[in-house]
Amino acid sequence: MEVLYAAIACGVAAVLYGIVTRQSILSASAGSEKMQEIATAIQEGAQAYLNRQYRTIAIVGVVVAVILFVTLGQLAALGFVIGAVLSGVAGYIGMLISVKANVRTTEAASTSLQAGLTIAFRSGAVTGMLVAGLALLAVAGYYTVLTGPMGIDPTDRAVIDALVALGFGASLISIFARLGGGIFTKGADVGADLVGKVEAGIPEDDPRNPAVIADNVGDNVGDCAGMAADLFETYVVTIGATMVLSALFISSGAADIMQLPLIIGGGCILTSIIGTYFVKLGKSQSIMGALYKGFIVTAVLSAGVMWFAMDWALGGEMERVFQTASSSFTGRDLYYCGLIGLIVTGLIIWITEYYTGTDYRPVRSIAKSSETGHGTNVIQGLAISLESTALPTLVICAGIIVAYQLAGILGLGFAATAMLALAGMVVALDAYGPVTDNAGGIAEMAGLDETVRSRTDALDAVGNTTKAVTKGYAIGSAGLAALVLFGAYTADLNTYFSDVTVDFGLSNPYVVVGLFLGAMLPYLFGAMGMTAVGRAGGAVVEEVREQFRNNPGIMEGTSKPDYARSVDLLTKAAIKEMIIPSLLPVAAPVITYYLINAIAGQAAAFAALGALLLGVIVGGLFVALSMTAGGGAWDNAKKYIEDGNHGGKGSEAHKAAVTGDTVGDPYKDTAGPAVNPMIKITNIVALLLLAMLAH
Amino acid sequence: MEVLYAAIACGVAAVLYGIVTRQSILSASAGSEKMQEIATAIQEGAQAYLNRQYRTIAIVGVVVAVILFVTLGQLAALGFVIGAVLSGVAGYIGMLISVKANVRTTEAASTSLQAGLTIAFRSGAVTGMLVAGLALLAVAGYYTVLTGPMGIDPTDRAVIDALVALGFGASLISIFARLGGGIFTKGADVGADLVGKVEAGIPEDDPRNPAVIADNVGDNVGDCAGMAADLFETYVVTIGATMVLSALFISSGAADIMQLPLIIGGGCILTSIIGTYFVKLGKSQSIMGALYKGFIVTAVLSAGVMWFAMDWALGGEMERVFQTASSSFTGRDLYYCGLIGLIVTGLIIWITEYYTGTDYRPVRSIAKSSETGHGTNVIQGLAISLESTALPTLVICAGIIVAYQLAGILGLGFAATAMLALAGMVVALDAYGPVTDNAGGIAEMAGLDETVRSRTDALDAVGNTTKAVTKGYAIGSAGLAALVLFGAYTADLNTYFSDVTVDFGLSNPYVVVGLFLGAMLPYLFGAMGMTAVGRAGGAVVEEVREQFRNNPGIMEGTSKPDYARSVDLLTKAAIKEMIIPSLLPVAAPVITYYLINAIAGQAAAFAALGALLLGVIVGGLFVALSMTAGGGAWDNAKKYIEDGNHGGKGSEAHKAAVTGDTVGDPYKDTAGPAVNPMIKITNIVALLLLAMLAH
Repeated sequence: MEVLYAAIACGVAAVLYGIVTRQSILSASAGSEKMQEIATAIQEGAQAYLNRQYRTIAIVGVVVAVILFVTLGQLAALGFVIGAVLSGVAGYIGMLISVKANVRTTEAASTSLQAGLTIAFRSGAVTGMLVAGLALLAVAGYYTVLTGPMGIDPTDRAVIDALVALGFGASLISIFARLGGGIFTKGADVGADLVGKVEAGIPEDDPRNPAVIADNVGDNVGDCAGMAADLFETYVVTIGATMVLSALFISSGAADIMQLPLIIGGGCILTSIIGTYFVKLGKSQSIMGALYKGFIVTAVLSAGVMWFAMDWALGGEMERVFQTASSSFTGRDLYYCGLIGLIVTGLIIWITEYYTGTDYRPVRSIAKSSETGHGTNVIQGLAISLESTALPTLVICAGIIVAYQLAGILGLGFAATAMLALAGMVVALDAYGPVTDNAGGIAEMAGLDETVRSRTDALDAVGNTTKAVTKGYAIGSAGLAALVLFGAYTADLNTYFSDVTVDFGLSNPYVVVGLFLGAMLPYLFGAMGMTAVGRAGGAVVEEVREQFRNNPGIMEGTSKPDYARSVDLLTKAAIKEMIIPSLLPVAAPVITYYLINAIAGQAAAFAALGALLLGVIVGGLFVALSMTAGGGAWDNAKKYIEDGNHGGKGSEAHKAAVTGDTVGDPYKDTAGPAVNPMIKITNIVALLLLAMLAH
Repeated sequence: MEVLYAAIACGVAAVLYGIVTRQSILSASAGSEKMQEIATAIQEGAQAYLNRQYRTIAIVGVVVAVILFVTLGQLAALGFVIGAVLSGVAGYIGMLISVKANVRTTEAASTSLQAGLTIAFRSGAVTGMLVAGLALLAVAGYYTVLTGPMGIDPTDRAVIDALVALGFGASLISIFARLGGGIFTKGADVGADLVGKVEAGIPEDDPRNPAVIADNVGDNVGDCAGMAADLFETYVVTIGATMVLSALFISSGAADIMQLPLIIGGGCILTSIIGTYFVKLGKSQSIMGALYKGFIVTAVLSAGVMWFAMDWALGGEMERVFQTASSSFTGRDLYYCGLIGLIVTGLIIWITEYYTGTDYRPVRSIAKSSETGHGTNVIQGLAISLESTALPTLVICAGIIVAYQLAGILGLGFAATAMLALAGMVVALDAYGPVTDNAGGIAEMAGLDETVRSRTDALDAVGNTTKAVTKGYAIGSAGLAALVLFGAYTADLNTYFSDVTVDFGLSNPYVVVGLFLGAMLPYLFGAMGMTAVGRAGGAVVEEVREQFRNNPGIMEGTSKPDYARSVDLLTKAAIKEMIIPSLLPVAAPVITYYLINAIAGQAAAFAALGALLLGVIVGGLFVALSMTAGGGAWDNAKKYIEDGNHGGKGSEAHKAAVTGDTVGDPYKDTAGPAVNPMIKITNIVALLLLAMLAH
């Protein structure tokens, strides 16, 4: 039990860090009255949107909770509610701190680059620690209550179902938040850019653009709140799935192994907190260098802390042998799997930086191709986005093979767990991005000095890369986590339906059909997300055009545009558009099962459903990787040109690069990242379906 | 034996049809001297390119033939050579007839729409019948020689290896031709459009554009010769794989079943020839309607002819029961599977028309989104391209399930065979496209009357849809054919390596790794293709800019540009760029096998290799479907705007649509269609690898 309490204590430490750091941010100056006025408008818009979004999600949530209560009982329903509520809380608080930090970053940036970096990064760190801390508290807390005071055996079905349901709650909120926020933010971004930069010829973040506040609101509700919910989900599902797998597979001593993911998570929260203090500009004034310093300190410390934490949790018996039906391994083997997770994380970050950083061939090739026009820019961007999937896939495959050799399917679970254990730090790097993006916007709108804007721009450019990095990391870990969930699916089949012989062989046509159907889902889902952004962006364009037409004073600067109208329009659009795609991964496994069951019986249906789960992983990994890396590369190709290359701002190459950036926006911030929760929802729904069928 | 002779006779009939029809086309007037001069320039460029391309491929071909000779003996090597040479011949003759028909179509179009349609479609029909006829002759002829005069048993390993090697020869040429031709044609198209339409503001096919002849050459070497090689390959591999599978699976009477695909192919050649005579404009003057009439007549007749052909070949015993290890079926069941193939073909054509025709939501949504700029056009185009994969996937899945229920894996083979049996007609519809495209170009360059150009434009617009249809059809059938090849792979494993227990279960990590690696290949391959087109197009832009700069008389119309230079530049670029991507699917299975074998032993290596084959099918289907349909939709969205919608030619929406079209070009004509042979090469190489390992 003390191991569990230690994990909970680490989760509490993260929350405390968040509260204390939030205070220190709030104590910083919020700048002039004008700046505060703008920040308030952004905050109000963001809150109004999130309130409405969560109200809508709550309706779906209540329906699902009732279904779970009726079919799987109160513990599962409660787990679902805990996952859903805490996911919402993580996103909401992330947004709240981010809308306070933006204006303070602007103000601090007028002093120095370091001061701006400090505020922005600390704000990101608050979100990061809250995400990791709340996620750990959710899993560890509920597990402790179930197995401690309630006295249920850790490997009991009730515990397993409760953990799966908790993951489902987190995933369901996450997909809505990612999609809704993504549609809002990119609808605003695309619309504002098209009608502002391209048509009216005014710069980004110009206060005359009626969609400018909506654009800034979007950064907070999409890039911040949506991302926070996403990573919360990834954390909960990964750690939860590894625990479930331990319960299902290990013949003796499962409870001991089930504690390990929690204590790994706890230990790495502490190293992440330490890491945040190392984010300081060196002599070279390299912002990316400062962020990397923090990350590397965290990763290296984690490699050590993980050993001691596991050793302690196993009572010093790292060589103790654990058995599953098909493999045996020691605590030391699991530790090595954790190291593999850390190495995979490092490599994926490095590869993502290569594909999205301005110093390397990919981004530069897109920038160069912009010289010959819009078409060649997009062609090269698409080529890079396709290409960028190859190296991460090889890394993930190598990780799978080595982890599996060490400790079977549980090895994958521990590799994924170690990846996610760094989430506090990774989210900190990511959540820093939207804050600096907003800070730049506020500087522009408040008409501050050029030096302030150039500092926030420098901070923001790095944010593009760190945002891409987080997405690559999330989808990479999702690939591993989903395989773990698939392992749970096959184990569940053996438990519940031992009388049905399911042939998962590739020669079974239902397996082939399942793979096709699974791989189809991310395509269809991506199509819906892209269409939604196109539609929302188009609506913004028309709204802004109308405001310009009816009120010529806006462009002359004599009268103020009605910012609230575009915020409102996007709020309605995003919430309407997020529903159907989000339900796709919930409905698909259920429909597939019943349809194939009706045609060819239960064995075929289970085979097709299992293959669908794997198909959605295989298909989704590529769709998500290509979209997130491609989008980041397009964005930074534009930034690279704006830095004075290939003709710089205003050149034909720049116009082409703006087009590429626009195309990349929904790729990287709407459709791509939402594939991550989508993959896991599909898998979790299948697990729940099995449990329901068995009851 | 008489069944085989009948099939061969049908193949000969197709060739005769080609020769006779070619004569009738050549007898038509070739127009004015100026027109003939242009046509000659196009012809010379196309021949020069193809000569060089085939010389380069020949080097690779000789190396491969020697390897096959050493490892698998002379019959396999000879099969390879037959497949390779006839594939080359089909492509070459297709190009030759197309460069003669283009100018005659222009001339005929000055009389009437029907006259233009007749010449263009007949020229396509020549290519179509030659492709189907030569392909049938290759398989049926070689099989007859092997099993007749040489007296080898039809199920003997030597026959199987020879048929597989024949398919390999066709596939290897096809991937080079598709990629090389695709890079040439789209490099020219993208380059000419960018520098002509966008920069210089001159219309498409303006004789002042130095890349205009290269653009027209590209239609012939890419859209015509490349496509012909591709469909030749698809035909040979599908029918060959079905025969191989029959030999491997059927316990008694395999030789009878092995004849069926040949006689189905033969019968459908006759119905295709009949169908060509029904392509006539009705009262509505609908060109698409005329083409559909031909297709529907062919399909309906084929459904009937197939029954009689099979009944005859089985000696009237359609109810005779055949056994495999896991299923049993009658001749009637196989006939039903054939019908499923015809239905799948019809549905895929219908779906493709929905996604690429100007009358439906997808194309119109792209056209509408062009109003708000380049960015939204591309976003919507990408959304449609993602979405367009869903319905074909559902159709293919339904086809797989029903065919499998009827006759197991062989049912899939017969469904695919029936699909491909219509190839003569489908290729005719497709090859008609580049001829009309050229005809329009010649009309423009020769300064003919507006009415001529408007007639060729009308013919050309339909060509866009029929081209997309063929690609959807080819990739859909490739999905089925590849599954048949995968069946052959598992059967071969059982034959050769009965001592190795291979676990193809989805829980095997090497299966998962194989699926990931397989799905990665089309992405990497697509990236290479797109990059190559971008690079070639950029080189054309610079070449043309230089000509404009050094010779101002070109734009004034006082001096002639140097057309040959861009043809030459593209020839070199295309041939250089096609090599590495084409070798990717050859190398990948070999490397995967040896690498996994070294790490985890032979059982794991066979599992990973098998999963790689399925992964490349699953991944490739989506990449290819999305690219070909998306590209077609972009193209026709531009055409729809040019027809006067959303502001028409010259409007901002039109400019955005041109960008979308440019992006779609390498999608639909280079990377997308080349995925089809790529999938099959990967599978065939794996089969050959097994055979080599066993020897």
